[in-house]
Amino acid sequence: MSTRTLVRGGLVVTASDELHADVLIEDGRIAALAAHGSDAAARWTADRTLDATGRYVIPGGVDVHTHMELPFGGTSASDTFETGTRAAAWGGTTTLVDFAVQSVGHPLREGLDTWYAKADGNCAIDYAFHMIMSDVTPATLREMPLLVQEGVTSFKLFMAYPGVFYSDDGQILRAMQVAADTGGLIMMHAENGIAIDVLVEQALARGETDPRYHGEVRKALLEAEATHRAIQLARVAGSPLYVVHVSAEEAVAELAAARDKGLPVFGETCPQYLFLSTDNLAEPDFEGAKYVCSTPLRPKEHQAALWRGLRTNDLQVVSTDHCPFCFTGQKELGRGDFSKIPNGLPGVENRMDLLHQAVVDGHISRRRWIEIACATPARMFGLYPQKGTIAPGADADVVIYDPHATQVLSAETHHMNVDYSAYEGRTVTGRVETVLSRGELVVDQRTYVGRAGHGVFVPRSTCQYLN
Amino acid sequence: MSTRTLVRGGLVVTASDELHADVLIEDGRIAALAAHGSDAAARWTADRTLDATGRYVIPGGVDVHTHMELPFGGTSASDTFETGTRAAAWGGTTTLVDFAVQSVGHPLREGLDTWYAKADGNCAIDYAFHMIMSDVTPATLREMPLLVQEGVTSFKLFMAYPGVFYSDDGQILRAMQVAADTGGLIMMHAENGIAIDVLVEQALARGETDPRYHGEVRKALLEAEATHRAIQLARVAGSPLYVVHVSAEEAVAELAAARDKGLPVFGETCPQYLFLSTDNLAEPDFEGAKYVCSTPLRPKEHQAALWRGLRTNDLQVVSTDHCPFCFTGQKELGRGDFSKIPNGLPGVENRMDLLHQAVVDGHISRRRWIEIACATPARMFGLYPQKGTIAPGADADVVIYDPHATQVLSAETHHMNVDYSAYEGRTVTGRVETVLSRGELVVDQRTYVGRAGHGVFVPRSTCQYLN
Amino acid sequence: MSTRTLVRGGLVVTASDELHADVLIEDGRIAALAAHGSDAAARWTADRTLDATGRYVIPGGVDVHTHMELPFGGTSASDTFETGTRAAAWGGTTTLVDFAVQSVGHPLREGLDTWYAKADGNCAIDYAFHMIMSDVTPATLREMPLLVQEGVTSFKLFMAYPGVFYSDDGQILRAMQVAADTGGLIMMHAENGIAIDVLVEQALARGETDPRYHGEVRKALLEAEATHRAIQLARVAGSPLYVVHVSAEEAVAELAAARDKGLPVFGETCPQYLFLSTDNLAEPDFEGAKYVCSTPLRPKEHQAALWRGLRTNDLQVVSTDHCPFCFTGQKELGRGDFSKIPNGLPGVENRMDLLHQAVVDGHISRRRWIEIACATPARMFGLYPQKGTIAPGADADVVIYDPHATQVLSAETHHMNVDYSAYEGRTVTGRVETVLSRGELVVDQRTYVGRAGHGVFVPRSTCQYLN
Amino acid sequence: MSTRTLVRGGLVVTASDELHADVLIEDGRIAALAAHGSDAAARWTADRTLDATGRYVIPGGVDVHTHMELPFGGTSASDTFETGTRAAAWGGTTTLVDFAVQSVGHPLREGLDTWYAKADGNCAIDYAFHMIMSDVTPATLREMPLLVQEGVTSFKLFMAYPGVFYSDDGQILRAMQVAADTGGLIMMHAENGIAIDVLVEQALARGETDPRYHGEVRKALLEAEATHRAIQLARVAGSPLYVVHVSAEEAVAELAAARDKGLPVFGETCPQYLFLSTDNLAEPDFEGAKYVCSTPLRPKEHQAALWRGLRTNDLQVVSTDHCPFCFTGQKELGRGDFSKIPNGLPGVENRMDLLHQAVVDGHISRRRWIEIACATPARMFGLYPQKGTIAPGADADVVIYDPHATQVLSAETHHMNVDYSAYEGRTVTGRVETVLSRGELVVDQRTYVGRAGHGVFVPRSTCQYLN
Repeated sequence: MSTRTLVRGGLVVTASDELHADVLIEDGRIAALAAHGSDAAARWTADRTLDATGRYVIPGGVDVHTHMELPFGGTSASDTFETGTRAAAWGGTTTLVDFAVQSVGHPLREGLDTWYAKADGNCAIDYAFHMIMSDVTPATLREMPLLVQEGVTSFKLFMAYPGVFYSDDGQILRAMQVAADTGGLIMMHAENGIAIDVLVEQALARGETDPRYHGEVRKALLEAEATHRAIQLARVAGSPLYVVHVSAEEAVAELAAARDKGLPVFGETCPQYLFLSTDNLAEPDFEGAKYVCSTPLRPKEHQAALWRGLRTNDLQVVSTDHCPFCFTGQKELGRGDFSKIPNGLPGVENRMDLLHQAVVDGHISRRRWIEIACATPARMFGLYPQKGTIAPGADADVVIYDPHATQVLSAETHHMNVDYSAYEGRTVTGRVETVLSRGELVVDQRTYVGRAGHGVFVPRSTCQYLN
Repeated sequence: MSTRTLVRGGLVVTASDELHADVLIEDGRIAALAAHGSDAAARWTADRTLDATGRYVIPGGVDVHTHMELPFGGTSASDTFETGTRAAAWGGTTTLVDFAVQSVGHPLREGLDTWYAKADGNCAIDYAFHMIMSDVTPATLREMPLLVQEGVTSFKLFMAYPGVFYSDDGQILRAMQVAADTGGLIMMHAENGIAIDVLVEQALARGETDPRYHGEVRKALLEAEATHRAIQLARVAGSPLYVVHVSAEEAVAELAAARDKGLPVFGETCPQYLFLSTDNLAEPDFEGAKYVCSTPLRPKEHQAALWRGLRTNDLQVVSTDHCPFCFTGQKELGRGDFSKIPNGLPGVENRMDLLHQAVVDGHISRRRWIEIACATPARMFGLYPQKGTIAPGADADVVIYDPHATQVLSAETHHMNVDYSAYEGRTVTGRVETVLSRGELVVDQRTYVGRAGHGVFVPRSTCQYLN
Repeated sequence: MSTRTLVRGGLVVTASDELHADVLIEDGRIAALAAHGSDAAARWTADRTLDATGRYVIPGGVDVHTHMELPFGGTSASDTFETGTRAAAWGGTTTLVDFAVQSVGHPLREGLDTWYAKADGNCAIDYAFHMIMSDVTPATLREMPLLVQEGVTSFKLFMAYPGVFYSDDGQILRAMQVAADTGGLIMMHAENGIAIDVLVEQALARGETDPRYHGEVRKALLEAEATHRAIQLARVAGSPLYVVHVSAEEAVAELAAARDKGLPVFGETCPQYLFLSTDNLAEPDFEGAKYVCSTPLRPKEHQAALWRGLRTNDLQVVSTDHCPFCFTGQKELGRGDFSKIPNGLPGVENRMDLLHQAVVDGHISRRRWIEIACATPARMFGLYPQKGTIAPGADADVVIYDPHATQVLSAETHHMNVDYSAYEGRTVTGRVETVLSRGELVVDQRTYVGRAGHGVFVPRSTCQYLN
Repeated sequence: MSTRTLVRGGLVVTASDELHADVLIEDGRIAALAAHGSDAAARWTADRTLDATGRYVIPGGVDVHTHMELPFGGTSASDTFETGTRAAAWGGTTTLVDFAVQSVGHPLREGLDTWYAKADGNCAIDYAFHMIMSDVTPATLREMPLLVQEGVTSFKLFMAYPGVFYSDDGQILRAMQVAADTGGLIMMHAENGIAIDVLVEQALARGETDPRYHGEVRKALLEAEATHRAIQLARVAGSPLYVVHVSAEEAVAELAAARDKGLPVFGETCPQYLFLSTDNLAEPDFEGAKYVCSTPLRPKEHQAALWRGLRTNDLQVVSTDHCPFCFTGQKELGRGDFSKIPNGLPGVENRMDLLHQAVVDGHISRRRWIEIACATPARMFGLYPQKGTIAPGADADVVIYDPHATQVLSAETHHMNVDYSAYEGRTVTGRVETVLSRGELVVDQRTYVGRAGHGVFVPRSTCQYLN
């Protein structure tokens, strides 16, 4: 017989509704919702009852952009799948979609297997994979449909990083054509890396080596250009497109223009672009290196466009692009040459809280918070309604969230394996209290009770956001 | 103790979800949803069980634009609240928002009371009212907050019909200012009536008297112009805006441009603009008169823009603008002078089916069908989640819909009190089978079992679509 | 036999060319141009030779927007045709197009005859008339073609000033239709005066009576709205459109959008919008009243859009809207109520110099200076090539301009009949040295040698800028 | 003493004026213009008098895009500088700017010297050179300023033709930076050749080998994309940009958007895009090969956008891209594989006549004809006012044009060295009668009297169209 958990008395917030309802969990899945005080609710009994009075009951966060243990620039991202998924759970996120990486000259299969192995048995929460294609060839194009069948239904390409991840427009077009045929979704790092590398070289030649020059050479216009180009290539291929880590106002404008035409073009931004700016990149004593990521942080003025894009649904998803490197020993590799600073920020633990702060600040509504952080990421990448909502039949990935508690973000208290916080000292309102993954407690009233190996690989269906 | 109804085995379709779930109704409200086959569902018992296997279980439709018994051009719309609400129920609609009309020189109160009286005791389903302001004066502006408190939270103004309903830009601006202060929502008939009346006069002087000239003089550019103007006035006033019966591609473009800027500007279209065209207006033997409404039907090419607007959410609502006049004796008033044809079409019974046909035809998804026909209209006009969704706590306005049945639309079989169908002979796939209003059967397996007087006035809160 | 004047050694600057050429004048017209040093030039003899070495030889300015002796708000513009045309000549302008005004209820003819009488025998330079239609009626519409035949080929309408000059959209449409048929050009004062008057009333009711509130209530959005509306009405009528005194960035955007569609829509701005701003309107001690005009001065940020519009040819003409009222006794009528301040600024004497300063400042090229100040205004209003250029056959309206001299603009030295300068104390580079009107000296090396009565009425052909 | 030629009685048409004037030529240059009937004109005497009564007197055409003797795809363009310049003169064109080609791995200098040698002593009319950069390297970047000083002030880059002329975005950016510093103008072949080559390969693999597939694979969206990208790169570099042979409506839209922002971005189109279409490419029996050029001919619907662009000045220049290959023996190389058809059309002889036909057809005005075909090309490439106008001081490159004569375009009568005409059988109104180059007769009343070697290399200054 089944194990029953009952979450009583909370305000259930989903992407579409705010319900005064009790939630009944049977065997790891949401079995039923019933209105507070209804006969139906009154009759329910359970093995375990969680009191959510005065709390929000929300779906666990779905972070579709993380890079655990990513090798980059001669070092590796400092969070393993074990430390990273634990931190994610602390932050109210219960599903990750990480990126498996193909090595140039090797099959996708090999890269994917490597990443399966990295994650297997180590994760506190469920996870899935996108595939980074470093090398679009006839052979790898033939592998794409196989991965789609296996539940790896999205493929990331780079218009940046020539010589590393870069694909040229012909490779991009071919991959998009296969995606259009198979239902795969192309994810694009949209920056004109060929042009940017010229500006990098020229900046270094002028002695402009500090972290802030990272922001200056990776120009907003070159993000917008690549965004426009990716959209046009997708139109030619007849495929949808998902642009990752959008940071520039001009890029948002390209997405908005495409969407006005009814094109299936989507955009993601990240908390760092919403809450940080080039002011951080310019922090003295090489502290700016903490904020080096690509696309780069932009001048503050761009934030308003990102918030507006999130409100108008020209941006659909907020993910973290979590890719932590310690300041000491890792970020420091780029002293004297900003181009050698490993690109990436920690954030997987902070996303749900920062976006709740955005609710408090009036940027978005509560439902939109859940939509951009849980429901749409799940739909976009074929995980809905298993993940991303609280509804009969869904996985019981549930967070009890205290909207009134305050906390101070800090490296001293966070659980990510990195020696700094990008939001050090920032006070936010709202805090995760309890986290369930498939009905099992992972965080119980701010005590970690999870375990490595609870989390399993979740094969994904194709994009569900197209209709 | 409570009366319990159980809807078993259907696919619950809401704006956000498609759930294989049973629905439990207690005392007229949705008490709970439980996954098919869950223990929770298995344990439920009920006084009455409806089998929805192979059917959709959807929220009752919310039609926010009807004109029952409207006096217009020396005659009156041919559906009373009794006949009109019954026909609505037949078509799967369980809530109407009709328009109370202020007479020039009289208080809003008086008009509203007149409409309360027309509806009271006569309706088969629930209803609410918008207020048409025919005369914006200091006195009527002072009445607006009182109506908002009473649950009449939206106010319609006309940029067309000089000398009848027309308000000038100063009156519009003042009403918008009050709306901005009180949370009222301004609904706008956006056509430049001053310019159109010149073209009407000139057309008639040239002997162009047939119904099709109605479409020619009410130019798309003059709808777009008025739409743009209303948006700018709303920006100056700091108020949201809802544009009714959008029919022209150029008007959709104005709405899309406003929304790209993040402005709280919304648009509604109607089935007649999606399924009919100036080809109908040009039907011989004065038959075109059946299709005379304002804004007018447009050339077929505009339909694609409307469908795209519905997909991109630049249009949010599909209502009917149901305003029926019999061909014999009413439409005929305009023989020899198209300007004397009463403006309006019947449609309250056809909306849900026509939009389901759009699902079948691939224009929109199932969830979007429910969103534009139920959930968003309810949110837009302060009825959510009481109306417009199936969720614990909502009114049990539920339709069991057979997605596979086919039917032929015809005046011979429809229930509206009008002697023609605008869609005569059209075959559509999908049909309402059973309709519940607050848990009571109104249509039971295609037998009408409702009664005049079941429906009650529903006071509305202010617009819930702004955040 | 003919009188011959020879202008030797200058740089002839026209809208299209910069020529090192001598200019030969016979009997008041340009007879020939010959390259410096050519045999042809060497052989020329003349009755009078003017040395232009080191100087520009430019066409006399064409100012197509002046209001001499205009009755407004219970007073009259302080420049008569005598004083105003003399000041114009001092400033290098040799042709004015002033506005004859129809009185409500009276024929256009009567208004035009009144203005003929005001100007006749009093002007130092040539002049023409536009017709202000205060009252669009069947009778005045019938007069329009007669005026076109008489050489009064442009008609100004107002979307502002309800109860005074205001025409509603139907009147505008009808006048545009006649213009489309007869080749007349509609000039539009594009501000939504109906909405603005509401804001004026509300501001005064709040005690906001200072001149700066004039700028706040006449919102940029309401200029843009009216501009858009006028464009749409012109599209419906199939007529060209000329928008006067464009001041708002948003209005420029409307013009640019229209022109991208290939519509025959044109825009004029004025030096006050290019060089002054709301900072001036906010000057203390009621000094802001000196800068009250409509459309109003805008925040400084708008200037960049105007300069860009002039460079991209989305704005084609710079005129002055010269309409001077003395500070003492006239502007003072509005103390305590900004809405009673007579609207208008002096400027007819300053335009050519301020625009030359724009050349010095790098905003525009020399050729563009002549284009926007001489050639295009002449083409736009049917005076080309008689006026606006230096070419064989043109009237010999020629200015010898010293590009290196500096001067300080001031009421103490200017020749306009008004007790203040809008540009008091501003130093500009460039100065008119000598002015010829039809070959006769009006200003000779900075001595006025002209006479009232030299200037004659010039009948105009229809717009020459359409092809 | 000087040689004097007098052109009497014609209507002088320039980009800015239509003048009833006689033109006096001294020693190969325009010495003077005088109004018909003026004393000045009456006194003129000359060694030779040409009667232009009833004719236009226009500046000789300036064709800034030709490829005489261009090696391409294993063959060479069939017109030599001798045959091509003679044909140009027959067509009323008196100045060519041809393209010198750098070979990959060789200096610009070497390519330029090769082209100097090809042209030297062979040309009937004056000529200049642009430089095609096939290989942007530090060495060739250093050569750019030297070429600018030498009068070769424009540099063409290709976003198409990978492996042949193609430059990547980094190379483009670097060349634009040098152009920005030195005043050079970058000319861009804007098509995404990397993506197009994928589509070519796929089409051929599907057996789509006919000429019409050339048009299908080189998609309008990929022209527009490259146009957008080139504009953004130019913004980053701070350089102006000239886009060659614009053919797609979507590309015109990109140019228009850039120009609305005030960017120094320019576009050229060609007669083949204005008068021919994909209908020609689809002609049977491989006849479509005659119309294979890149960018390709587009569906007829695009023509309206090109004409509108020419009217709104979003396109500034019409050149020919003259690059003839005989059908027999050359075009035939691509039987069975459209990608092997040499790209190019003949047209240098037809441009002035076809554009005059556009005047007759009402697409453009007479002045605009001269502007896009003579004056602007000369200004754009630093030849003005020496070339492109009729004004004192200009070279006496003068065409007497009969606007009433009709002619039938045909390979049987044309003078280009190619075995077909792209306009075979088309009747046009207007014909060149007499052509002068620097005052010497080249065509005298439709008899060729010119000679190879009369034409000389003309060093050019930098772009004069920027201010």
